[in-house]
Amino acid sequence: MNKNKATQISLQDITITDRFWIGRMELMAREVIPYQWDALNDNIPGAEPSHAMENFRIAAGESTGEFHGMVFQDSDVAKWIEAASYSLVNFPNPDLERTIDEVVDLMGKAQQSDGYLNTYFTVAKPDQRWKDFSGGHELYCAGHLMEAAVAYYQATGKSIFLTIMCRYADYIDSIIGPAENKMKVYCGHEEIEIALIKLYRVTDNERYLKLSQYFINERGKQPCFLAEEPTFNSSKTKWFGLDYHQAQVPVREQTKAEGHSVRAMYLYAGMTDLAIETGDETLYQVLQKLWDNVTHYRMYITGGLGSQGHGERFTLDYDLPNDSAYAETCATIGLIFWAERMLLLHPESRYADVMEKALYNGALSGISLDGRKYFYVNPLEVIPEAVKDRYDLQHVKLERQQWLGCACCPPNIARLITSLGQYIYSQDGDVLYTHLYIASEAGFHVKGGQVRLAQKGNYPWDGQITFTVQTPKETEFTIAVRIPGWCREYQLKLNGITLEEIPVVHGYAKIRRKWGNGDEINLQLAMPVELIQAHPKVREDIGKVAIQRGPVVYCLEEIDNGKDLWSIALTTKEKLTAEFAEDLFDGVTIISGEALKADDSSWRDSLYHPLRDQTKPFNIKAVPYCFWGNRQPGEMLVWIHRKG
Amino acid sequence: MNKNKATQISLQDITITDRFWIGRMELMAREVIPYQWDALNDNIPGAEPSHAMENFRIAAGESTGEFHGMVFQDSDVAKWIEAASYSLVNFPNPDLERTIDEVVDLMGKAQQSDGYLNTYFTVAKPDQRWKDFSGGHELYCAGHLMEAAVAYYQATGKSIFLTIMCRYADYIDSIIGPAENKMKVYCGHEEIEIALIKLYRVTDNERYLKLSQYFINERGKQPCFLAEEPTFNSSKTKWFGLDYHQAQVPVREQTKAEGHSVRAMYLYAGMTDLAIETGDETLYQVLQKLWDNVTHYRMYITGGLGSQGHGERFTLDYDLPNDSAYAETCATIGLIFWAERMLLLHPESRYADVMEKALYNGALSGISLDGRKYFYVNPLEVIPEAVKDRYDLQHVKLERQQWLGCACCPPNIARLITSLGQYIYSQDGDVLYTHLYIASEAGFHVKGGQVRLAQKGNYPWDGQITFTVQTPKETEFTIAVRIPGWCREYQLKLNGITLEEIPVVHGYAKIRRKWGNGDEINLQLAMPVELIQAHPKVREDIGKVAIQRGPVVYCLEEIDNGKDLWSIALTTKEKLTAEFAEDLFDGVTIISGEALKADDSSWRDSLYHPLRDQTKPFNIKAVPYCFWGNRQPGEMLVWIHRKG
Repeated sequence: MNKNKATQISLQDITITDRFWIGRMELMAREVIPYQWDALNDNIPGAEPSHAMENFRIAAGESTGEFHGMVFQDSDVAKWIEAASYSLVNFPNPDLERTIDEVVDLMGKAQQSDGYLNTYFTVAKPDQRWKDFSGGHELYCAGHLMEAAVAYYQATGKSIFLTIMCRYADYIDSIIGPAENKMKVYCGHEEIEIALIKLYRVTDNERYLKLSQYFINERGKQPCFLAEEPTFNSSKTKWFGLDYHQAQVPVREQTKAEGHSVRAMYLYAGMTDLAIETGDETLYQVLQKLWDNVTHYRMYITGGLGSQGHGERFTLDYDLPNDSAYAETCATIGLIFWAERMLLLHPESRYADVMEKALYNGALSGISLDGRKYFYVNPLEVIPEAVKDRYDLQHVKLERQQWLGCACCPPNIARLITSLGQYIYSQDGDVLYTHLYIASEAGFHVKGGQVRLAQKGNYPWDGQITFTVQTPKETEFTIAVRIPGWCREYQLKLNGITLEEIPVVHGYAKIRRKWGNGDEINLQLAMPVELIQAHPKVREDIGKVAIQRGPVVYCLEEIDNGKDLWSIALTTKEKLTAEFAEDLFDGVTIISGEALKADDSSWRDSLYHPLRDQTKPFNIKAVPYCFWGNRQPGEMLVWIHRKG
Repeated sequence: MNKNKATQISLQDITITDRFWIGRMELMAREVIPYQWDALNDNIPGAEPSHAMENFRIAAGESTGEFHGMVFQDSDVAKWIEAASYSLVNFPNPDLERTIDEVVDLMGKAQQSDGYLNTYFTVAKPDQRWKDFSGGHELYCAGHLMEAAVAYYQATGKSIFLTIMCRYADYIDSIIGPAENKMKVYCGHEEIEIALIKLYRVTDNERYLKLSQYFINERGKQPCFLAEEPTFNSSKTKWFGLDYHQAQVPVREQTKAEGHSVRAMYLYAGMTDLAIETGDETLYQVLQKLWDNVTHYRMYITGGLGSQGHGERFTLDYDLPNDSAYAETCATIGLIFWAERMLLLHPESRYADVMEKALYNGALSGISLDGRKYFYVNPLEVIPEAVKDRYDLQHVKLERQQWLGCACCPPNIARLITSLGQYIYSQDGDVLYTHLYIASEAGFHVKGGQVRLAQKGNYPWDGQITFTVQTPKETEFTIAVRIPGWCREYQLKLNGITLEEIPVVHGYAKIRRKWGNGDEINLQLAMPVELIQAHPKVREDIGKVAIQRGPVVYCLEEIDNGKDLWSIALTTKEKLTAEFAEDLFDGVTIISGEALKADDSSWRDSLYHPLRDQTKPFNIKAVPYCFWGNRQPGEMLVWIHRKG
């Protein structure tokens, strides 16, 4: 499996010890996974009901009643199993494992004799299987169940769920594909493309790789079968056309990220997986174009994607409104999935920069500090009165929700955080890449031997990172240390001696030597407060700046700065200082200092007046964007007006 | 009629000679009224069909077929007759008069035996009369027909249409009202309130005044009958609730302008008419509150009203987005109607300031220079690519349209311009108020004699205005000269001698004396280029300024300034100069000068970057907002970023 290719580190080989993350991972194990299990079983008072587990019980014949929820409700259970499985690796929990076993048992009972497994179509629409690829989400749900089965197998070694999902995959392969007697279709919502490659990697069954390849190659061929489906609603509005499904042209002809942003990210991640497995250069070429389009034209500074709620989608280049942003948590998570795969395909720090940006900002904002509340939409500016009264802001919520009718995001953020260890490093032959600065202990197989790397630091609050090599014998290999794109000044030391002429290739300082036990790399990243400007073509951000320090984007909240945040103006970054606050959000670096605020005391009643431009000194306090809304609802602002 | 009350000047008593306006009034007579007649008869190739006249022919039994168009399609014909009638006063046209006579003949034939006159309900829903007050627009259409009948009577002396409409009004009065056996209802769209008072003023029939009073007093009483109607769609969304109809509380308890902005303006205009006629102080109190709310919190700098397309409505205080503005032409026209009435009720120049602002900006922008194309929506910022691709901008059009499926605006702007003479002056006893600076010859009855006032000037491009009194005998009276709110420095001369200590009461310099023939007032209003700021609570305008000179608001257009208008920054007004351009838009003062534009030449691919704030010198050219979109589609911007 995956010989001669760059690989992720497996969760078994890494232990996170990081102050910022360890608490979150423990929270996942202790609170979030049980909480989400309760949600899936409708045991959270006041939360939107899920019915997802009950659907499985009904499909398994262990309960009676009707299907309820979204057509893709099964995927919530799948993503929960996936998250729970990842969590089991670091936090063994026999009760949780037994619960999953019971769910898997239900899966087996709900599986039809031909291998089919989907509670919506089994319970509610038994005669409608495989008729609605644009809206039905059957292959999407199958994909999430496959990912869950792989995760559970990797965490526990138990193969029963994997066997169930291989049966389902075999069945799908028997009815869909290039052969003349098979359906020429793919899912309106990509996901199975990723999942089949995961299944291929654990089973070595090439049919799964080929089926994923088929789905990707078939996508967007014209005329498109999706447009012929009665359920396809392109006739309603252009925002739900073929591009909504990334099916407007074949994938290799796509150059801009279009349509539903989560779907796009899952497609691109799947395409990257396929390129990794097949070495397909045509895919790599198009993936680079799509990457550039997303990250140079269509991405919020938080790593948020999707500028419009209607169609949960991309709009046009440089169109990044802050208050009406969609920036779905799942889309940012999808961007992380994609970035991590791009790093395997071609290790360039720009992919890691975006992965880090998305992780520390637009993804983490999706979950509350107590793990029990979730944002689906992650705007960069919130005015409660406008959210309440304006029709075009109805997708925005002022507070994270206990659960969601469309609950894709909560288990998605859970599976991301519980599998975080996989994102820190990658290995390509005898090159170990450091992508994320998360304190941890990791093991690698290098040249037949075992090497361990201990990472220490207090990232993202501090730029001092130390790597210590642990090796039983001197071994020659390369440690490729990522120099973050946000960093303008850094220093690299080896065993206390500054390295002056280390080659930095695609953003990685490559240190090749015979490493001995106890060798230490010290990386010092200067982490001043920065005022960040958006490209002048971003009309919503003109004349504004965002506060950033390291990879962390900051925001102003009403609780710290009062109302009318938009009337605050920053002058220079020299007036801002960073300070670690032990007691806020379990420890956080806050940024404060002098700014200006519009002085409207002389305005009285007039709405328009010849320019007088009166301001007063004002002390601001900024907190990391990802933590906004954890105290009380109120205004929030990322892009702050600038003066001078 | 209206003795002892302030009055409008009648159209017969005034002749406009103004360079800015006379061409437009001639255009109305020569081009627009025939063009709109063609539109109402579906004779404009490529335009959205109206069917409005055909509906009347069908209802009159002179044609067959089905009703087509909006439920309020009759009102388009009514407003066209009203406009055509006003135009006849200054531009006699026997052919046009004959055409109207023929329409009136159809009206008579379409009128039912009981007096009812509405083609939609007569042709399409004969059994559904008076069952849908929230959406049916029956009383609204009746009102517009009444206004048309009054205008036609006043222009021609012909009473046949007036008789028809009195029959209809009598019928309405017989079925709706406070008496026990009558319906307790009012129209979901206000309009008949204004119309009945006009009918009362020409007929002296107090029942019409009382019925108007009933509609106004009944409105908003709870529980509200509208909410009981099957057609009432409050259940759909809150944007179409009782406040959409200004029926959430009784009118005297309303303190903020809520709901559909055109409806609100027509209601407030009707309330003002009623206050004029009855001296009702409680109405005056509430009208002041509503006026302040509209003009201090909810009005665009152009006089545009309505911050949201969904519900064509007001949203919340200081919520004035520029690109997604609705600012319907009809709402601005309605604001002019209301302002003109407020001036009669209580002459204060703040009403005239708003009337003037609305007239020269947000109303006039609704019609193209050739009179044949119309904006319904008047945004303050347009980016063509965003309008094309963003769902929340779908109400915006890049170009004025030949006609509209909902064609309320085109005949509304026509009736406003053709009746413009009425808005220039008002008379309260022996005080003549000058409200608008429009060159004209006007006659007044003062103390039993005839006095004429000749106004000369080149407004709005020039602030020099001269009034010459023509009187056969010396007469003592007051000329109250409005000092515009936009003006920060003025000089007033009488027969060449500067008046130093003239009392300015509510914004009017009151000159009382025995006026002799040839006496001349010279008013010099300093008219520099001004940079205007919005109240700092208007979050969409923070850090921005608008260019204004006199009452005229300017904008940048792509044709003059290239793309990415938002990346232009103004520094100080001293760098801008005004210059009259003979050859543009039939003569217009343009504003040009030095500004800055963001320099993105060093940005290359990055979307976010530490602040570098690079700009380059850039020469701007601004044109009056009301003329935007008369050359070619492209970007447009009113609120311009400011730097320094």
